[in-house]
Amino acid sequence: MGFTHFDKKGRAVMVDVTEKKETYREAVAKGKIKVTAEVLRAVKEGRAAKGDVLACATVAGIMGAKQTSQLIPMCHPLPISKCAVDFEIDDSHLEIHCTCTVRVTGRTGVEMEALTGVSAALLTVYDMCKAMDKTMEIGGIYLYKKTGGKSGTIFNEKEAENERYKGKPDFCCDHNPE
Amino acid sequence: MGFTHFDKKGRAVMVDVTEKKETYREAVAKGKIKVTAEVLRAVKEGRAAKGDVLACATVAGIMGAKQTSQLIPMCHPLPISKCAVDFEIDDSHLEIHCTCTVRVTGRTGVEMEALTGVSAALLTVYDMCKAMDKTMEIGGIYLYKKTGGKSGTIFNEKEAENERYKGKPDFCCDHNPE
Amino acid sequence: MGFTHFDKKGRAVMVDVTEKKETYREAVAKGKIKVTAEVLRAVKEGRAAKGDVLACATVAGIMGAKQTSQLIPMCHPLPISKCAVDFEIDDSHLEIHCTCTVRVTGRTGVEMEALTGVSAALLTVYDMCKAMDKTMEIGGIYLYKKTGGKSGTIFNEKEAENERYKGKPDFCCDHNPE
Amino acid sequence: MGFTHFDKKGRAVMVDVTEKKETYREAVAKGKIKVTAEVLRAVKEGRAAKGDVLACATVAGIMGAKQTSQLIPMCHPLPISKCAVDFEIDDSHLEIHCTCTVRVTGRTGVEMEALTGVSAALLTVYDMCKAMDKTMEIGGIYLYKKTGGKSGTIFNEKEAENERYKGKPDFCCDHNPE
Amino acid sequence: MGFTHFDKKGRAVMVDVTEKKETYREAVAKGKIKVTAEVLRAVKEGRAAKGDVLACATVAGIMGAKQTSQLIPMCHPLPISKCAVDFEIDDSHLEIHCTCTVRVTGRTGVEMEALTGVSAALLTVYDMCKAMDKTMEIGGIYLYKKTGGKSGTIFNEKEAENERYKGKPDFCCDHNPE
Amino acid sequence: MGFTHFDKKGRAVMVDVTEKKETYREAVAKGKIKVTAEVLRAVKEGRAAKGDVLACATVAGIMGAKQTSQLIPMCHPLPISKCAVDFEIDDSHLEIHCTCTVRVTGRTGVEMEALTGVSAALLTVYDMCKAMDKTMEIGGIYLYKKTGGKSGTIFNEKEAENERYKGKPDFCCDHNPE
Repeated sequence: MGFTHFDKKGRAVMVDVTEKKETYREAVAKGKIKVTAEVLRAVKEGRAAKGDVLACATVAGIMGAKQTSQLIPMCHPLPISKCAVDFEIDDSHLEIHCTCTVRVTGRTGVEMEALTGVSAALLTVYDMCKAMDKTMEIGGIYLYKKTGGKSGTIFNEKEAENERYKGKPDFCCDHNPE
Repeated sequence: MGFTHFDKKGRAVMVDVTEKKETYREAVAKGKIKVTAEVLRAVKEGRAAKGDVLACATVAGIMGAKQTSQLIPMCHPLPISKCAVDFEIDDSHLEIHCTCTVRVTGRTGVEMEALTGVSAALLTVYDMCKAMDKTMEIGGIYLYKKTGGKSGTIFNEKEAENERYKGKPDFCCDHNPE
Repeated sequence: MGFTHFDKKGRAVMVDVTEKKETYREAVAKGKIKVTAEVLRAVKEGRAAKGDVLACATVAGIMGAKQTSQLIPMCHPLPISKCAVDFEIDDSHLEIHCTCTVRVTGRTGVEMEALTGVSAALLTVYDMCKAMDKTMEIGGIYLYKKTGGKSGTIFNEKEAENERYKGKPDFCCDHNPE
Repeated sequence: MGFTHFDKKGRAVMVDVTEKKETYREAVAKGKIKVTAEVLRAVKEGRAAKGDVLACATVAGIMGAKQTSQLIPMCHPLPISKCAVDFEIDDSHLEIHCTCTVRVTGRTGVEMEALTGVSAALLTVYDMCKAMDKTMEIGGIYLYKKTGGKSGTIFNEKEAENERYKGKPDFCCDHNPE
Repeated sequence: MGFTHFDKKGRAVMVDVTEKKETYREAVAKGKIKVTAEVLRAVKEGRAAKGDVLACATVAGIMGAKQTSQLIPMCHPLPISKCAVDFEIDDSHLEIHCTCTVRVTGRTGVEMEALTGVSAALLTVYDMCKAMDKTMEIGGIYLYKKTGGKSGTIFNEKEAENERYKGKPDFCCDHNPE
Repeated sequence: MGFTHFDKKGRAVMVDVTEKKETYREAVAKGKIKVTAEVLRAVKEGRAAKGDVLACATVAGIMGAKQTSQLIPMCHPLPISKCAVDFEIDDSHLEIHCTCTVRVTGRTGVEMEALTGVSAALLTVYDMCKAMDKTMEIGGIYLYKKTGGKSGTIFNEKEAENERYKGKPDFCCDHNPE
């Protein structure tokens, strides 16, 4: 199977989805940021008290998902009907995990919206903590789940896989750990 | 050292840089996307022939860097004076590496612009290849180098570190591989 | 009844409207700006002759309504199907009144679009007159009418209420005049 | 003194500030939203616990200030160097007060940025509470203070004036109460 | 037939299309840029070798089409379902011709999207070649074809007409030179 | 002289202007739209009476100039210090001529801002008149004058040239020259 984003001359093109049915579609993307213990503590205290990195990053993720078609050249503009950004803190690996869920009733899927939402949220965490740590790393950004559309439900088992590694020294965004 | 992005009540604030000098500043960020062999081949052929995923992603990265202050809530708007996006293909690890370099003469640094440029470029690669592979993973996004400003030159040695691992089974965005 | 914009952890979330029906919806918002006699005269003369503050503010209001989902974090992007901005001059109170009407066939209402349209229009009047008067005040921004959606038709009677005060010393945006 | 925003034919024009010196400038704008007791309680509890309307509105205000030149047609784009949004709750009048402070080293002032920041923040409060109350009213948006530039320091005494009315039945955005 | 963009007072208004049916609509717009022989050679070589003005202009045209409702005040925001930009080089007239095709299932047509796409693409060609030639001229921007909507199919025969003139000395955007 | 917008690999790059001096720069661009007699009459009456196509197009041109770096991929963001849009009606050729003047004190010129301003203004005229005429044509968009920067003052004599042809078969986007 070849690219769908190029016409016959090889130029980029926004794929024609005019003929597709408007159906319910959902996408969930995940990602994480590796930080120092000092940053993690500050984020957690900030959240408990009042300074709230994750509140700001949540807003950025949602607004970022809405800007997807202005950032990703071949993305269709879509009137998304739901967007949520969630965080979990992994103390043992010094990581903040982010999940973005997007829904639409539309002619094409929202995986790019979910992936862009995760990216904007994690970049915001980076921005707000960068005075404390300049070695943070963002990674593990992938499509976790996708429903609706002609490719049906897609579920990437990376999470489960990672489960097997719990308790062992782990990596930020390992793909094929063996 | 604590957060600089919160005022005394703990609300987010755009840090005051009014008093800072306008100086020359540069930032270089890096990131990568892990793909299948099929995708990598298509990207390379596309590039050789005409369909050019990386040409499109280059444009997206540069335009993305210019949108940084609209995506990252506490970022200052900056009239950046240079932006370049570059790609390298790592055949042995099935990865496409991206570097974004941004310069400005301004009151604050451009690391967020460089990191946003890398993110937008890699998300665009993802978007243009997602019909072929739904398991791609974006990672290893970090600040490679930063010059100018009060913190002087910062250089993250992750690259050199990764060198040591060449030829061994490697991971997408491993942070502290030992 | 509690907030609808927060998930269980208390983080902001764009409310899920995926399941809602696409129905016809309209919202009308109102607002005003209090100016000096000198400004009011200039606005009126400008309009009569050619310099046209209100023509510019009309355009700003309509374009502002279209930017609503980029300004208000939890707003859904909506393909609005009509937007009109209208002004009335109240000579006796030295006020310029603005009304913005927005329509859509969509899954959620357009009150924020109408309120944002009014705000952008009045801020533009302010901007264009601020060389003459730095004490202007924008106020009285509220939802005048809303039809469609599960809450049915809503009509805020503030207008009629204000009628009772005609001829008496009045206030910019009095809420509970007794 | 006449308009500065129109050329000789009466068309709108972005005023030429090329010849002006780059100087330090600051503007502070204020505004408020009148809500029901139920909304006020929810906002306060939300803030104390976790759901944080004001955290979201703070982000919206800062991002809104950065969008000023895209919303207000004749505004110059300005690389603002600081932006802060602050809220105070007035229990006795059931009002949430908002202040936005903006700084720049530039050729023109930032009052429109401060006023737009206040407007975006208050519209966001409205949006997040509108499921509970559809009669809220935004008002009292004015320039509180402005320093720098050829008009020197401007200070609008409305605050002090309002002080005189403390304890008496008050209005949302009364301008000249006597 | 009069204007549809003004209300009874003569102010601009975004036309109400709420009552219109959602139907399939397509628009094709064309335009061109007149360059020097040196620029044309560089564009062609660049494309063959590596520097690819037209790849960049293609992306700009597609992203520009998506920004139409933010550029053209009375345009409705539309979730376009396809956008393609194509170029042809006319060596004998030293012109680069651009075609932009846009589709939507919506309540109003997409001719402005197609025309804006052509404009953004040609402006990008100009920008990337302006170091070599400051006398380039963009012209001949018109609606080539439009289908769907109440006005049915529209086809502007300018192309065919120009055919007759092939081989004769020609001008940038002359229509019927005799 | 070769392209300045590509790096050694041929990828697009935003040219580095960091080392350039901030100097005063101005650019003036021109363009026109060919319409029917009916449209021209309506535009003129509209302007005299109240419906004001050109007032709306003026605002669009100025706002468009401010969006240049978001539309044209390799353009630097610039804090422009002046923007004016002007129209002249050429009754004998049924054309509306547009001029856009932009100024900045910056490290690079503003010709793209002036050209984008003209394009946005003329597209807006097209949009507002398209219900009456679907054969309009936009053309003759070129850089009329440019001062400042290392290439000194540039003045394109097309105007003068066109003067010579007055009354004779004409160029650039003449529609029905006889």
